[in-house]
Amino acid sequence: MNSRADTGNAGERALIEHIRRRLPTPPPSLLIGPGDDAAVLTPARGTLQVLTTDAVVEGVHFDRRFSSLSDIGYKAVAVNVSDIAAMGATPEFVLLSLILPDGFSRGDLDALLDGVLEMAAQAQTTVAGGNISRSPGPLIVDVTATGSVRPRRVLARSGGRAGDSIYVTGTIGGAAAGLGALKSGAVPQEGALAAGPMAGPIRRHQRPEPRLRMGMLLGRNRAASACMDLSDGLADGVRQIAEASGTGAILEASLLPIDPDAAAWFAAQGQDPVLSALTGGDDYELIFTVSKKLRGRFRGVEQHARGLTVTRIGELTEGGGVRLSRAGGFELIPDGFTHF
Amino acid sequence: MNSRADTGNAGERALIEHIRRRLPTPPPSLLIGPGDDAAVLTPARGTLQVLTTDAVVEGVHFDRRFSSLSDIGYKAVAVNVSDIAAMGATPEFVLLSLILPDGFSRGDLDALLDGVLEMAAQAQTTVAGGNISRSPGPLIVDVTATGSVRPRRVLARSGGRAGDSIYVTGTIGGAAAGLGALKSGAVPQEGALAAGPMAGPIRRHQRPEPRLRMGMLLGRNRAASACMDLSDGLADGVRQIAEASGTGAILEASLLPIDPDAAAWFAAQGQDPVLSALTGGDDYELIFTVSKKLRGRFRGVEQHARGLTVTRIGELTEGGGVRLSRAGGFELIPDGFTHF
Repeated sequence: MNSRADTGNAGERALIEHIRRRLPTPPPSLLIGPGDDAAVLTPARGTLQVLTTDAVVEGVHFDRRFSSLSDIGYKAVAVNVSDIAAMGATPEFVLLSLILPDGFSRGDLDALLDGVLEMAAQAQTTVAGGNISRSPGPLIVDVTATGSVRPRRVLARSGGRAGDSIYVTGTIGGAAAGLGALKSGAVPQEGALAAGPMAGPIRRHQRPEPRLRMGMLLGRNRAASACMDLSDGLADGVRQIAEASGTGAILEASLLPIDPDAAAWFAAQGQDPVLSALTGGDDYELIFTVSKKLRGRFRGVEQHARGLTVTRIGELTEGGGVRLSRAGGFELIPDGFTHF
Repeated sequence: MNSRADTGNAGERALIEHIRRRLPTPPPSLLIGPGDDAAVLTPARGTLQVLTTDAVVEGVHFDRRFSSLSDIGYKAVAVNVSDIAAMGATPEFVLLSLILPDGFSRGDLDALLDGVLEMAAQAQTTVAGGNISRSPGPLIVDVTATGSVRPRRVLARSGGRAGDSIYVTGTIGGAAAGLGALKSGAVPQEGALAAGPMAGPIRRHQRPEPRLRMGMLLGRNRAASACMDLSDGLADGVRQIAEASGTGAILEASLLPIDPDAAAWFAAQGQDPVLSALTGGDDYELIFTVSKKLRGRFRGVEQHARGLTVTRIGELTEGGGVRLSRAGGFELIPDGFTHF
């Protein structure tokens, strides 16, 4: 939206103009929005800027048989604001880099924008600019999100210490089971939303809910020692926090909040529900650690969680890798979700 | 670098670690760099933030027969910092979203990074984060750049008024002629750099030089009424400024600073050198407008241009579209570069 006319001038200008007309009125902090070389915005005084970028790629992160274009737009924004929330920050602006395949129609663009704008509004963010390019291959929606946070409220991955409790929001395994069900073809698809017991997990894969409020609450109240979002599975998340914090970790299998429909589906496939839920990606829950000292603050945050469950699942340890405690024994946890 | 392990955990972690090790020491304003959910940085007090994103896509913006991976990385950063400079701002941070095809080796990544880091260093920017995804199709390097600028120094496209002179930096037509020469196969290729009379234009296509210093000088001295960078040709640039400013424009054909090697090449192809140079994209020069009132300030800027030529090529008019004055007559200028 701000720069090169990669789709040809007339074509790009028309598309950009079309997108601009669909954007809601921007806040006064956006001084120059889509249409110039770059967006210009006023950072709030005394805040740090938080920046992240993440792409969803056709054939890697989504399959157009399983997700509508609106779902894809929604998810592309969701995974980025989730990263902002995982830093304890408040999402503010979004840049949209669209790489569109041949034959991508105005109607397709509108459907994609429906989802983008829905999630952008839900996250109270503003589309400040972007770019449109042609793709000789897959559809790619690459989003950059910005956020702001006061200096002492940043939630990094590296702040955990041995003895800190590990928590996770919501449930795990849903998105992986939903995608599995879609791939197996076992689920009758009608429009974007399947019916039946797998509807929840499928919806989870298609439209993850970033835990924006919880990230902000943890940051504002300085209630967590470390935090990140779960894009590649709980096992990966715990490992990343443990590595960044220079600790090990133990998870308690019986405490894991596995989505019940997902657990049933994993079991029906002959998979170990615990391992499948631990390594299944795309849930976008937050995991975070709470030290003894922070426990009081964390209780306060929990009371404002508005129905979002938060579950203690284990603790950080002095070294020892990432282990799972189950049936009285310990096992090393395998690595997470692998696309390659 | 900050988010999902789209290439698989172990694979992505290794690649990210590899990239991190290659990054120079960041400035203290980067509080959290690659490796967390998002980058965290301190905006300078009293400045506005400038944000842009732009992708280079294999098969659309580059051909690996004509550009080395290092050239591609260089250009991906160059086109983004060029957008920042065109706002009168100083580039600061870069986020790197890499969509890598199957078989993209560690050596390929290193070559790409060579170019990214070369341009990032040249622009005095810091790679603050990014993301790596797998591509089932083309190689895509999508970059987001940030910059900062003091509030009254922003150079928007919309500030031109009828009577303002239009200027362009450097020369035009070079990149288009260089690409044309490469495509025609008429030029012996040796490594990234061809020899002979087309070496300059070819280099221009492969490694455009963003006019960072001139953008900053024009902003700091408030010496231009409107400004943008030339990604899609001069005709497109003038049209965009005229439209955003609510004016028309007249360009004087005899004043256009057409690259002489490019002009000779266009002529040899039986093309009109003026029209080819006007519509050829990818030069990344700046065009800007200067009102009578700003002329004194602009003279001051010119004296600090360090060898970069700046040429007056026409002026904004009260309406009338964008016209070319040539051989005593006027013609309407055709639309610019079209990828689609």
